[in-house]
Amino acid sequence: MDVHQVVDGVLAREPRAIARAISMVEDGDDALPALSAGVFAHTGAAATVGLTGAPGVGKSTIATVLVRTARAAGRRVAVLAIDPTSPYTGGALLGDRVRMQEHATDRDVFIRSMATRGHLGGMALAAPEAVRILDAAGFDLVIVETVGVGQAEIDVAAATDTTIVVLAPGLGDAIQMAKAGILEVADLFVVNKADRDGAAEVQREVKQMLHLGATRPWDPPVFATAAADGTGIDELWGAIARHRTWLESSGTLAGDREAAVVHEVRALAAERLAASVAAELAGDDGIRAKLRDRALDPYAAADELIRRLAPG
Amino acid sequence: MDVHQVVDGVLAREPRAIARAISMVEDGDDALPALSAGVFAHTGAAATVGLTGAPGVGKSTIATVLVRTARAAGRRVAVLAIDPTSPYTGGALLGDRVRMQEHATDRDVFIRSMATRGHLGGMALAAPEAVRILDAAGFDLVIVETVGVGQAEIDVAAATDTTIVVLAPGLGDAIQMAKAGILEVADLFVVNKADRDGAAEVQREVKQMLHLGATRPWDPPVFATAAADGTGIDELWGAIARHRTWLESSGTLAGDREAAVVHEVRALAAERLAASVAAELAGDDGIRAKLRDRALDPYAAADELIRRLAPG
Repeated sequence: MDVHQVVDGVLAREPRAIARAISMVEDGDDALPALSAGVFAHTGAAATVGLTGAPGVGKSTIATVLVRTARAAGRRVAVLAIDPTSPYTGGALLGDRVRMQEHATDRDVFIRSMATRGHLGGMALAAPEAVRILDAAGFDLVIVETVGVGQAEIDVAAATDTTIVVLAPGLGDAIQMAKAGILEVADLFVVNKADRDGAAEVQREVKQMLHLGATRPWDPPVFATAAADGTGIDELWGAIARHRTWLESSGTLAGDREAAVVHEVRALAAERLAASVAAELAGDDGIRAKLRDRALDPYAAADELIRRLAPG
Repeated sequence: MDVHQVVDGVLAREPRAIARAISMVEDGDDALPALSAGVFAHTGAAATVGLTGAPGVGKSTIATVLVRTARAAGRRVAVLAIDPTSPYTGGALLGDRVRMQEHATDRDVFIRSMATRGHLGGMALAAPEAVRILDAAGFDLVIVETVGVGQAEIDVAAATDTTIVVLAPGLGDAIQMAKAGILEVADLFVVNKADRDGAAEVQREVKQMLHLGATRPWDPPVFATAAADGTGIDELWGAIARHRTWLESSGTLAGDREAAVVHEVRALAAERLAASVAAELAGDDGIRAKLRDRALDPYAAADELIRRLAPG
């Protein structure tokens, strides 16, 4: 399949072409610019939802239940689990297979984990590209699930239209979440595993934290779910729809999306320039020796490389 | 204090100058290149230790107990807690104050949390700069503690000489850690809160995961601690020293450090080029309109900006 066939296949909603396109993003394929150019004009219709939170809070389970709910409502839905590759485990892929079984013959569902180590820009650049492919492939809803709970993961989730922060009793309290900068990016909070001890406390803590912050035009609601048996998912689904309506009616959506794509172009240009810098650095033993001997400090070395790359 | 006074003060080990220098890093001060140039030749003697792990596992407590142990051994020690700023909480600063009290009059201890939003390159660039300041200020041991457990946090911890991954029962199991890519960067594992249910299981899980992976020249040991009452800290301290000896005798240290500084120069040059790209993008309404209307895709826009910056 050459890149034009991949683009045509994505637009024709063929699962094999979609999978191939995501793999191209994952691998940082040389044909990514052509893929990007081919799908971009066909994007913008999908609603994107980010799911972030500490490991173990139940993000995958919530994603799975949301898929079922979306299908019951007649919506085409894709899940993209952003998973930094680890040679130590095939856990994520195994999870995908389990999740896939239920929808194995349903072309209106696409579930995929995506490693990002092959992509020059890491998950921050790989995620929006993959989301656009799914958008161009006609999925009404694209759910982006992150694995960790660091700044990069939060940024990825925050780049979606609606960001859901998932918490659970006993798994990193609200103060820890606040320290990680997670509260500011949330449009909706979910306290999952609500049947466990301490769930009401977590809800109360989050609400208190929210009241300490500056008033925002959208006041993030806090939901209790027990995703494993579906409790609270209908309410969450309703809130996702309400947030969507608000984004559109307030004009926030257009502004957020423009800011996101501008941010992405900046990062993309920076990554490509960084690759040129890296090549320059790799080819110059002298500058590396000076750094090693502490005769040239990192800023001075960076300056020297920039001068070579962009004279004047 | 101008930047030369700051540099002289850092080299003279004055707490006020050291604090000012760290703040300059935090704020992305214009004089950072001069600061970096001033201290770089005086670095390299400190042993650096990274502490990473999920929120709530007890990293701060371990850092505090290691400070006490280091002081008992007559070593000068600094702790740098890398904390993405949140307007919602002063938690980290409060924690610092509590931790500081014990060593308030001891000039051989420096404990500081560092936000990184003012720094162009985020924590990946701010952390090594701050570490070099502490190194130049004559601290024998510099402990770098991260708050989250995302890729960026793992990268920061991994850029230290010795990386300690902290786990605790019930707080994100080993499989989740493996998914976050954390196992590969660990030189030492600590299962903290070892007095709680499930601690032995976490230890067993980590050891199993390690055996699944490729054999590495240094086989990371797994320790049980209960940092709150000091249990296991002497053993951990001994292992840090053994890892240090191995790094030096195997020649690994020099190679690791060269790779880290080369990586940093690459990122630094890229960030500065990115700032130029951002300025270009901000000044060009036409290119933003084309992106918004999906007439120009992100790769093509990045290409256009790169051409303007580095013609030819």
